[in-house]
Amino acid sequence: MGAPPGYRPSAWVHLLHQLPRADFQLRPVPSGFAPQEQEYQQALLLVAALAGLGLGLSLIFIAAYLIRFCCCRPPEPPGSKSPPPGGGCVTWSCIAALLVGCAGIGIGFYGNSETSDGVSQLSSALLHANHTLSAIDHLVLEMVERLGEAVRTELTTLEEVLTQRTELVAATRGARRQAEAVAQQLQGLAFWRGVPLSPLQVAEDVSFVEEYRWLAYILLLLLELLVCLFTLLGLAKQSKWLVIVMTVMSLLVLVLSWGSMGLEAATAVGLSDFCSSPDTYVLNLTQEETGLGSDILNYYFLCNQAVSNPFQQRLTLSQRALANIHSQLQGLEREAVPQFPSAQKPLLSLEETMNVTEGNFHQLVALLHCRGLHKDYGAALRGLCEDALEGLLFLLLFSLLSAGALATALCSLPRAWALFPPSDDYDDTDDDDPFNPQESKRFVQWQSSI
Amino acid sequence: MGAPPGYRPSAWVHLLHQLPRADFQLRPVPSGFAPQEQEYQQALLLVAALAGLGLGLSLIFIAAYLIRFCCCRPPEPPGSKSPPPGGGCVTWSCIAALLVGCAGIGIGFYGNSETSDGVSQLSSALLHANHTLSAIDHLVLEMVERLGEAVRTELTTLEEVLTQRTELVAATRGARRQAEAVAQQLQGLAFWRGVPLSPLQVAEDVSFVEEYRWLAYILLLLLELLVCLFTLLGLAKQSKWLVIVMTVMSLLVLVLSWGSMGLEAATAVGLSDFCSSPDTYVLNLTQEETGLGSDILNYYFLCNQAVSNPFQQRLTLSQRALANIHSQLQGLEREAVPQFPSAQKPLLSLEETMNVTEGNFHQLVALLHCRGLHKDYGAALRGLCEDALEGLLFLLLFSLLSAGALATALCSLPRAWALFPPSDDYDDTDDDDPFNPQESKRFVQWQSSI
Repeated sequence: MGAPPGYRPSAWVHLLHQLPRADFQLRPVPSGFAPQEQEYQQALLLVAALAGLGLGLSLIFIAAYLIRFCCCRPPEPPGSKSPPPGGGCVTWSCIAALLVGCAGIGIGFYGNSETSDGVSQLSSALLHANHTLSAIDHLVLEMVERLGEAVRTELTTLEEVLTQRTELVAATRGARRQAEAVAQQLQGLAFWRGVPLSPLQVAEDVSFVEEYRWLAYILLLLLELLVCLFTLLGLAKQSKWLVIVMTVMSLLVLVLSWGSMGLEAATAVGLSDFCSSPDTYVLNLTQEETGLGSDILNYYFLCNQAVSNPFQQRLTLSQRALANIHSQLQGLEREAVPQFPSAQKPLLSLEETMNVTEGNFHQLVALLHCRGLHKDYGAALRGLCEDALEGLLFLLLFSLLSAGALATALCSLPRAWALFPPSDDYDDTDDDDPFNPQESKRFVQWQSSI
Repeated sequence: MGAPPGYRPSAWVHLLHQLPRADFQLRPVPSGFAPQEQEYQQALLLVAALAGLGLGLSLIFIAAYLIRFCCCRPPEPPGSKSPPPGGGCVTWSCIAALLVGCAGIGIGFYGNSETSDGVSQLSSALLHANHTLSAIDHLVLEMVERLGEAVRTELTTLEEVLTQRTELVAATRGARRQAEAVAQQLQGLAFWRGVPLSPLQVAEDVSFVEEYRWLAYILLLLLELLVCLFTLLGLAKQSKWLVIVMTVMSLLVLVLSWGSMGLEAATAVGLSDFCSSPDTYVLNLTQEETGLGSDILNYYFLCNQAVSNPFQQRLTLSQRALANIHSQLQGLEREAVPQFPSAQKPLLSLEETMNVTEGNFHQLVALLHCRGLHKDYGAALRGLCEDALEGLLFLLLFSLLSAGALATALCSLPRAWALFPPSDDYDDTDDDDPFNPQESKRFVQWQSSI
């Protein structure tokens, strides 16, 4: 009941997590997330290498197709009336491939923005956790200082004023001891003080890497969009040099697409392993990095009824001591003020301090409760394992679509280009007039090929 | 320091909020969000009516253009060798318009998913707030029951056991009074009990409406996508009946686009007014709906240093009473157990109850603190005013692009269609053979027009 609804692995995580993994010797590797182990690293590298294999195969296929086309079917001599058979199919398949590539680019933009959303959710959860942790430190420091100040000034003044009645001095000393005990208990609550791991630093690093990843994808997407549009323009205008330049660019983007696909596949597989049961890994990593006790980390990372609050005893003792100080101060007020009116001022000031401290204590209890930090942990996991993974899968789909589309386009472009009429023959005629006879003939030739 | 980083209005909110508003008599209306005032409703209706005006103007323009085209430039007789001048421009502008429409559809899909994300963020924040509020109720009920049980059983047993020593019975009665006082104080903390407003119900209503909104947009987007693709197909295949059907469908989608644009514009303007300073409106509305005190609502909706915790006093009193009960029980254990060994069992059971109650009390303090509920409020506002508004603006862009594209297409389609060769003349020839002479002639005719 106390814990907010947490993170649950999605169907995609389960699906990816169930894929078999193997190391370089093709021995099966367990799919638990263990990035420090060599076999696991090899399994991820093997996933990325599959994309390299795909690139190699598609390049061999394109080369074989084009060599067969060049050597076995020489293009018709220019000016021939009947275009080579299959030309229409070639041009249409090229256009269809480029349109599929454009749809893939749309999917890529969506995936990139989704991944970016997920990672920014992770960063903001880390920032929020950092805020909570530093608020705890700050609040403890403030309370300890306030209590120390009260002990140094008001309680000392009170002892001096009440010096004639030993039992009142004893009560004052009791209050002083309790206040010192509270301050000591409180200092044990600032559990993040001196911990070398800063969520702020982690959030900044994550945002930094994500910024460049986002930018790289935007540039890749724009490059591919430009290649698609200029290829379509080249086909429509029958401009040979534009189609040649775009064929070369398509080759470059094909290599980039397969490369990004390898990275995405390896990241998605690794992320699915992490996301299928993140608690253990994050717990161990945080324990290594921070050196905090497992009771504290379990409390915050699990935050359920089974795990008791590790600060419960300190909080209860502090609370009782605060209540005791309060009742002692009330006793002093009843006993001492009628006899020593000068004791009223430090007593009132002390009660004011106690009221503020009790208010701060409630805030500290709220901050220390696992609810807030566990919610940040859940938000970070949801950002990483739902939005970012989903975006990554969309990017994978983009890479697949664009690799397929570009391979098809690379096969078709040289054939479509071979169908263009040579442009040198009639440089002097009006190229822009669609009604001059040569232009009409070119249209017949090209269009009948479509 | 205690409050997490909250919601800040975005630049879009400021921009939309600064647009001038007027009622039906064109008198300026202040841009504060006041949906219950007639002038404000009129201002929003006027914004929506602007889209109706746009629809009327574009229909008049299309009609005028087509009438001028039909009456002043009759189409060339079929079989004429030279196509009418400007035909190429017409077909190209139609294709370009449809491509712009397709890009708009992509933007529309993105905007629809973004709006849906924002609204689901709002729902999940409401669900989370509901979880917190019911957890408070539940916890208070549990603590009160536990204390009542302790008073009824253990404290009564203790009184019976210690009946011989009146000062111990008095101490037990003191503990009973304190426990009853704590139970009474705690009952005042379940502030949401009996409140007629259920965040769960609101979240369900919001999700229900959003589901239908999302579905309606998906259907509109798919309809427009089909219209665009079939129109392109009709142009490519030169199929008259397909182009005619798609012209009629384009007209329908044009009306739907302008209609959705009106709704989106009015919603965006209203949302920007709400989002520019949501606190006051939400505070007043919640106060009306729940009847809760403004101190409680201010605490949760503002959650800053300036607003003090309205439960502070109750919490402090309960905490002191719990500490007092604890010290009384310890005193009883010291004094009574050596003399009355049968008092040990109820005393141990009571101390166990007190420990559990103190643990629950800390959880209650954490739940009651404004931090958690204010974070949900901030998340709900960010979902509504950042993601949903951004998605709405993308949908507005989609509507604008598709209205422009469809208007252009509606102007061009009948002219492009007039350029098609009549298909009745040669039904018997092989239409699919691009190399039959008539087909070639048609290609010359159509292509030279491009």
